[in-house]
Amino acid sequence: MQREQVQQYIEELQDEICQGLIDVGEQPYREDIWQRDQGGGGRTRIWEDGQIFEKAGVAMSVVYGELPAAARSQASPLAKARGDQFFATGMSLVLHPHNPFIPTVHANYRYFEIGDGDKNEPPKDIHDWWFGGGADLTPNYVDDQNFKHFHQTLQDACLRSESGDYDRFKDTCDTYFYLPHRGETRGIGGIFFEHIQDPHFEAGLELIQNCGRAFLPSYLPMVEQHRDRIFSKQEREWQLLRRGRYVEFNLIYDRGTTFGLKSNGRTESILMSLPKIAHWGYDRQPEKGTPEADMLATLKQPQSWTK
Amino acid sequence: MQREQVQQYIEELQDEICQGLIDVGEQPYREDIWQRDQGGGGRTRIWEDGQIFEKAGVAMSVVYGELPAAARSQASPLAKARGDQFFATGMSLVLHPHNPFIPTVHANYRYFEIGDGDKNEPPKDIHDWWFGGGADLTPNYVDDQNFKHFHQTLQDACLRSESGDYDRFKDTCDTYFYLPHRGETRGIGGIFFEHIQDPHFEAGLELIQNCGRAFLPSYLPMVEQHRDRIFSKQEREWQLLRRGRYVEFNLIYDRGTTFGLKSNGRTESILMSLPKIAHWGYDRQPEKGTPEADMLATLKQPQSWTK
Repeated sequence: MQREQVQQYIEELQDEICQGLIDVGEQPYREDIWQRDQGGGGRTRIWEDGQIFEKAGVAMSVVYGELPAAARSQASPLAKARGDQFFATGMSLVLHPHNPFIPTVHANYRYFEIGDGDKNEPPKDIHDWWFGGGADLTPNYVDDQNFKHFHQTLQDACLRSESGDYDRFKDTCDTYFYLPHRGETRGIGGIFFEHIQDPHFEAGLELIQNCGRAFLPSYLPMVEQHRDRIFSKQEREWQLLRRGRYVEFNLIYDRGTTFGLKSNGRTESILMSLPKIAHWGYDRQPEKGTPEADMLATLKQPQSWTK
Repeated sequence: MQREQVQQYIEELQDEICQGLIDVGEQPYREDIWQRDQGGGGRTRIWEDGQIFEKAGVAMSVVYGELPAAARSQASPLAKARGDQFFATGMSLVLHPHNPFIPTVHANYRYFEIGDGDKNEPPKDIHDWWFGGGADLTPNYVDDQNFKHFHQTLQDACLRSESGDYDRFKDTCDTYFYLPHRGETRGIGGIFFEHIQDPHFEAGLELIQNCGRAFLPSYLPMVEQHRDRIFSKQEREWQLLRRGRYVEFNLIYDRGTTFGLKSNGRTESILMSLPKIAHWGYDRQPEKGTPEADMLATLKQPQSWTK
């Protein structure tokens, strides 16, 4: 029953988040329900040119079947011994707002299992299943109060969870969302974790439940605070240049994206994360002392936001 | 003297192409002259919001010094025996026009050598030096006459060159500029070659001279034909979606880009290839029977343009 338990939560989380966005004034989403030939499918909800979001997606999927060859070669011997079947379910979202003062946000929470699952219980071997996920914020302008609130809300969710470890998850996030060729983090981080198995299944589920439910309270205050703020053509241009960086990270470094595309994953689902519009210029540097330069400086070195 | 000979040609080629663009009405370029700490440097010429081009760059560089570790591990034993010094020079261009009916174009011609070059002659070991390069066209709309002219001009340049082999270079180009996750080629191809050593140095130099000098005649007629053509908002949007594909190819698959960025290359030079603006949508498909659908169909399967 464990698979069904996670899947039910993942569906609920998608519903809760989509409803929360609509409740603050976003228009109804467009839904794309798709099947996967080899087993499973998904429910992708999309906004393009919405009230608040220029482009946004909140997706869930449940996929299962034969483990792809690339993943099998990386599995442990014990996992291999369980057979070549897998099961994975997850919720993933990326929201790109119109207003440059509202940060872009990304979150995903997921569960992965190797084995055929016939026994309706999680496999005993710890290599065979795990929870993963996280949430991170990509602002265009520095707002210390916003950043503290986002991190504090996630830290509180971790503190309420037996498997939660905010400090470790924050470090993993800062390390992961980094563009070495720019010497910049993608944003101001958040949490990121993988391979959560200890101490038991229920604790892993509790972790993604607490963190998942923390999403709306961590993010919506920024939407409400900045959505009607006036912005200049220059501020819009800065946002679009930063979206270029977002594209660079996702297409060059993000493991889910690069692995997904190269292993015949569903292209539209994988690239749902990309913004509607991204700009590039040659050697564009913000002038010293500007809010744009301040943002860039903040991305040069991860900071503690909850201390 | 061979290195100097290639370098002189590369500088001339950059000058010739930049002058050719200005002669058809483009404004003067912005020049960025840069040095490489470990040896060498370059001369990057940039247009942003020009008369014809929304974003364009024509760059040349001469770099030398210690062979980067990543490249050394791939070198042949004989090459390794020559030492850990390298020399490379090349010209690279990407032109993104304003008008959606003028194709984006890319070309680069280059020379690479392992060894310290003190003897002022190319190394005798065939693993130690090579010529490479090519040119390819990325249109938004099908124009058979334009595509034939582009390929024919390159084929003629190959025919005039002892080392030229248009059929092979065209196949290599079609295979290389391919986006598996889209099932599309990046554009309608051209020529692409690497590791050209046979039968001798002079033939390799002749090949990149003939192909390089074919660039302006292969491309400028399209600029002159379409530059004043009226286009709709929908045609502009299609162009920007196609530029999203260009970004996808360059950041995910292009070896020069991915290897360059991951081996501490000069970021601004490497990403000079990106367009000023790129768009993405969720599952956007052109309607059947439209010129956009016609273009997409043309990218599904490489075609012969000179037969």
